[in-house]
Amino acid sequence: MVPHLTTSLTGPLQDLERHVLDRRPEIERWFRSRFASHEVPFYSSVDLRNSGFKLAPVDTNLFPGGFNNLNPDFMPLCIHAAMSAIAKQCPDAQKFLLVPENHTRNLHYLQSVATLKRILEGAGLEVRIGSLIPELAGPTEIETAGGEKLLLEPLARRGNRVGLAGFDPCAVLLNNDLSGGVPAILAGLEQRVVPPLIAGWSTRRKSQHFVAYDGVAEDFAELVGIDPWLVNPVFAQCGQVDFAAKSGEECLAARVEEVLAQVREKYAEYGITEEPFAIVKADAGTYGMGIMTVKGADDVRNLNRKTRNKMAVIKEGQPVTEVIIQEGVYTFEDVDGAVAEPVIYMIDQFVVGGFYRVHDARGKDENLNAPGMAFHPLAFETDCHSPDCAGAPGDPPNRFYTYGVVARMAALAAAVEVEEMAMRIEEPEPA
Amino acid sequence: MVPHLTTSLTGPLQDLERHVLDRRPEIERWFRSRFASHEVPFYSSVDLRNSGFKLAPVDTNLFPGGFNNLNPDFMPLCIHAAMSAIAKQCPDAQKFLLVPENHTRNLHYLQSVATLKRILEGAGLEVRIGSLIPELAGPTEIETAGGEKLLLEPLARRGNRVGLAGFDPCAVLLNNDLSGGVPAILAGLEQRVVPPLIAGWSTRRKSQHFVAYDGVAEDFAELVGIDPWLVNPVFAQCGQVDFAAKSGEECLAARVEEVLAQVREKYAEYGITEEPFAIVKADAGTYGMGIMTVKGADDVRNLNRKTRNKMAVIKEGQPVTEVIIQEGVYTFEDVDGAVAEPVIYMIDQFVVGGFYRVHDARGKDENLNAPGMAFHPLAFETDCHSPDCAGAPGDPPNRFYTYGVVARMAALAAAVEVEEMAMRIEEPEPA
Repeated sequence: MVPHLTTSLTGPLQDLERHVLDRRPEIERWFRSRFASHEVPFYSSVDLRNSGFKLAPVDTNLFPGGFNNLNPDFMPLCIHAAMSAIAKQCPDAQKFLLVPENHTRNLHYLQSVATLKRILEGAGLEVRIGSLIPELAGPTEIETAGGEKLLLEPLARRGNRVGLAGFDPCAVLLNNDLSGGVPAILAGLEQRVVPPLIAGWSTRRKSQHFVAYDGVAEDFAELVGIDPWLVNPVFAQCGQVDFAAKSGEECLAARVEEVLAQVREKYAEYGITEEPFAIVKADAGTYGMGIMTVKGADDVRNLNRKTRNKMAVIKEGQPVTEVIIQEGVYTFEDVDGAVAEPVIYMIDQFVVGGFYRVHDARGKDENLNAPGMAFHPLAFETDCHSPDCAGAPGDPPNRFYTYGVVARMAALAAAVEVEEMAMRIEEPEPA
Repeated sequence: MVPHLTTSLTGPLQDLERHVLDRRPEIERWFRSRFASHEVPFYSSVDLRNSGFKLAPVDTNLFPGGFNNLNPDFMPLCIHAAMSAIAKQCPDAQKFLLVPENHTRNLHYLQSVATLKRILEGAGLEVRIGSLIPELAGPTEIETAGGEKLLLEPLARRGNRVGLAGFDPCAVLLNNDLSGGVPAILAGLEQRVVPPLIAGWSTRRKSQHFVAYDGVAEDFAELVGIDPWLVNPVFAQCGQVDFAAKSGEECLAARVEEVLAQVREKYAEYGITEEPFAIVKADAGTYGMGIMTVKGADDVRNLNRKTRNKMAVIKEGQPVTEVIIQEGVYTFEDVDGAVAEPVIYMIDQFVVGGFYRVHDARGKDENLNAPGMAFHPLAFETDCHSPDCAGAPGDPPNRFYTYGVVARMAALAAAVEVEEMAMRIEEPEPA
């Protein structure tokens, strides 16, 4: 199932696709050299927005859920990519401790954990699930949305090692974004932790990711011969906001105006008649919490109580003081009349699948990662990756190849971002 | 379609599968460490024989054809594996010259070349076909068995580089086994040649491969806790045979007797009541030429003219003076009543597919790689690689996993074999 492109402004995107397809050997060589000099994340998922005139990442997740939404036919791709990631990052490991989010009622998330466990086992690892849930008294079997049984076991610390009763793992794979900070039980481990603790939201910032992405997009745009804006959303950061105390509003309003002014200029350059908008998000946020759509500076002044409350606190009750203001990219793709946002999954540097995030009740300028959204799987056309069988730009295989290119650029930016964090921070302090 | 196992002697093989499945994390870790210290072949295919009591490689091809026989659904696996191989062996390459065999009438082989070209293009390379055919006057388009158009272009040498008119490739991918020796046009190139020229049959010997495989099988057997014979055919070599002049027969007869004596001992140990047999093959041979089945030393004495002629000369008219005498492994698998031999394909260290070689008119103790054979694709069960969804030993996913393990052992042996050749020979002399 391939969504129908509803935009009529297909000119610049077709140009982009044509450029990407024409430069494919150069692009793949460029990725090879970049991924040889930066440690690509073990896994990642990237939310893309396709406006017809622009295709850009809007969020890069280093602890992806949603593996259950990928096409099961591509499980072998996931397994091979995991074999490659393990060979690079922890070749000696044969026992893996998988540490998931503390959700016990989100059975879809638990299905993703079960799928991820199967991928890692497929790559030849012995995998058990170590839970951070404080009230977990002992090993607890949960049935996932897909009817699989998943055994959650309480983590146990012994000296500088973490494990389970009767299980001393060689490495720890985090599928928990550490929004609430680094738990003491995971701090200062002698075992390899993948991704590193600094990639959690207690230290990571969206704005730093997009600073790294700026560099990647510049290089890529030069290689391919395009305007980097076509693959890169404008953004600004504001570090002193307190929605509850109503302070920092002027800083936020000024940044919103800056971002919108740049977007207006670009829209004028390309003859785009849509109204520019921006998305204000918690800089350390996730899970679609703490997000609002704005079309002018006034939209962030005099916020009502409900909006302020929504913005003030995100996952794990963390207060929001830093926000990113990001150019909004219209979603011009639809699935059966509902707006659709593609999410691309990578393990190591390999694109292993994707799906569309679809929500009937939301507009094309709103965040789609929110409670109540329905997922539709993306039928990834992987058997037509070569230029000689590529038809017109906009054909599904070509569009999906281009999605994979932009997603890999975001994964590369995440590699640079995490490296730069590692130079500043040895290991984050435990919460 | 999974062939039905016709053997009733399933005991030892089931043990082998159970051992392999139980030790999966150790096995995968072992492969990771071995493939980290040896350069795995860019691609390879391995002919396996499954006798019910034994599962062993009988031939390892470093210039595989037959990519057209793989399940097209697994094209993305091939593409990812090729991306990995390119990143390791020639990361800077973006233009690849593919040098195939000189067959112009074997349209199935040309379909394999077309499939391989699509795999490499899928991995982001620009690929053109450089032909060694002397009488090729200029670019010649041929239609393959699958109806694809393939452009063969004459190779052109400029100084220490080889290319085509208007095409200066970064690397050369050989899909030609160099049975006739190294063509002068490919000797002493400054470009990377993959696999290296020494991997061609002008220098390669099957017996050297199986010497390397002995070491791999010993290590593996110790890791898994099995008798190495269960995955390793007994062999001997005889280097002074002249079938045409009827000389060297006694050497050959003595080696045949040695091999059969060892096999008889093993059959007695395991209570196997089948009659042992051996396969005599040209040590530098290929393409199913120069192969005979023997059940005793007398079978190689007083050969009739027809057999001597068959054995005396192989592909490209090369005379046979060196032969390998290899324990015959009965084929107990059948497809619709015809004997079947699995062939497993690898790119880099990844198993990317396989198929059964099936021949109605041949016996279970004969070579199946011969003119007239019919191919049936192997339905590779790749979405059930994990022990927790593995059913009884002998279930297709388990059997195929075990096939992949034995095939990867052969690829590892080929890596060791080529390394050892490279220490002895810088580059083979041109023919």
